[in-house]
Amino acid sequence: MLSEEQRARITVVLVRARNPNNIGAVARAMHGFGFADLRIVNDYSVGFEKAKSAVDASDILATAREFPTVADAVADCSLVVGTTAVGERKQEHSLYTLAQAATLLRSTVAHARVALLFGSEKTGLSNDAMSHCHWLMTIPMHPSPGLRHASMNLGQAAAVCLYELVRHEDPVATTESQPAAQAEDLERVTHLLAEMLTSIGYARRRPAAADPGAVRRMVRRLNLSQSDARRWIGILRQLLWKISE
Amino acid sequence: MLSEEQRARITVVLVRARNPNNIGAVARAMHGFGFADLRIVNDYSVGFEKAKSAVDASDILATAREFPTVADAVADCSLVVGTTAVGERKQEHSLYTLAQAATLLRSTVAHARVALLFGSEKTGLSNDAMSHCHWLMTIPMHPSPGLRHASMNLGQAAAVCLYELVRHEDPVATTESQPAAQAEDLERVTHLLAEMLTSIGYARRRPAAADPGAVRRMVRRLNLSQSDARRWIGILRQLLWKISE
Repeated sequence: MLSEEQRARITVVLVRARNPNNIGAVARAMHGFGFADLRIVNDYSVGFEKAKSAVDASDILATAREFPTVADAVADCSLVVGTTAVGERKQEHSLYTLAQAATLLRSTVAHARVALLFGSEKTGLSNDAMSHCHWLMTIPMHPSPGLRHASMNLGQAAAVCLYELVRHEDPVATTESQPAAQAEDLERVTHLLAEMLTSIGYARRRPAAADPGAVRRMVRRLNLSQSDARRWIGILRQLLWKISE
Repeated sequence: MLSEEQRARITVVLVRARNPNNIGAVARAMHGFGFADLRIVNDYSVGFEKAKSAVDASDILATAREFPTVADAVADCSLVVGTTAVGERKQEHSLYTLAQAATLLRSTVAHARVALLFGSEKTGLSNDAMSHCHWLMTIPMHPSPGLRHASMNLGQAAAVCLYELVRHEDPVATTESQPAAQAEDLERVTHLLAEMLTSIGYARRRPAAADPGAVRRMVRRLNLSQSDARRWIGILRQLLWKISE
């Protein structure tokens, strides 16, 4: 469980991201998962400027800061973690899967600032940018039979990484399921259904299926809510009344 | 752990998705996480046609199928799960967080086909589309102080959902860390470092910090790899030789 203070210690650094839509998508994911500190390292700031002027640009883009170098962007961070698509190049760093990395990251943000570095859409992080990282993490991808290495766009990769950091929290675990029907109502449904099966001649042709126990088990398997059970009681009563006319 | 057979039983249904970039991004995420069955339900197929002609369109888009209605698209699925941003509308379905939902989904794909429904970027799933769902799932979002409800784009939402389905597998848990330095090398580093501290007068000014035990602990805290320890030994030797000139 990340506290607000711990979330505030997580910094996302985009190195040479140039597509304004992707920068905007990273900001949206940060906003959605409760992170705020976005830093941009770019040779030129066209992408960033365009992203800031985009319709759905959030407060996060408005407060994002530009830095001339990776070293400047991560200067106040105690742990710097690079993201990479495995196989991009020979790794000289320790490499963890995202799930492993999240555990390590969560323990560090308890006391210090952490930077997550994302590289450009085309080439990922350069060797120079990676040299600032303590270790690397990767989103495990399914081995592809094709030659092209599978990868996602920057907005997707950032969303998945940030989701993994907070997924244990499940803050809106609002399973608003309807209250389940009580046995009394289920018995009413059972009796009405059995009566109906007899009325229509089904019980005579399929006695085993219309056996009271079989009908009771069938009704229990429906997992009816209270309101649905009462609806079914009304329907079956009306049906029986119609049949008996 | 999802087998290939189980992955093949997971179907992604995009209902009224219109942005070709988003459709392409969903296909990329499916490809990345090892899923293949994409189905499109659209009033008109402009978005889908554009997505298919996009540069990074994968095999998944080439084999995606179009259906006139949600009912047609999910006809062979035993479990139909809708995705929703909480608060979009009053829910008449059970609602699970993504992590909870993934557990339920994994148990169903062991024996039956499952459909994951994603709605349009603007309005999500319609009530009619939701009525085909057995239950709903949502990606937990951080409560935002602003009025606008936080949400991600379609490509991001699909990536996060599919990641959660496969995250337990961690197929590339290749922690390629360097072998750690052995104590013998760490002792060499310790002695050379202590000698250097004496040579430069630091040990005289800060005797506690240059105490042999303090230096040894400091070197152990570096967590040196074997190759890095040997590199440091070389550096310190050269340094001492230089100082003694």
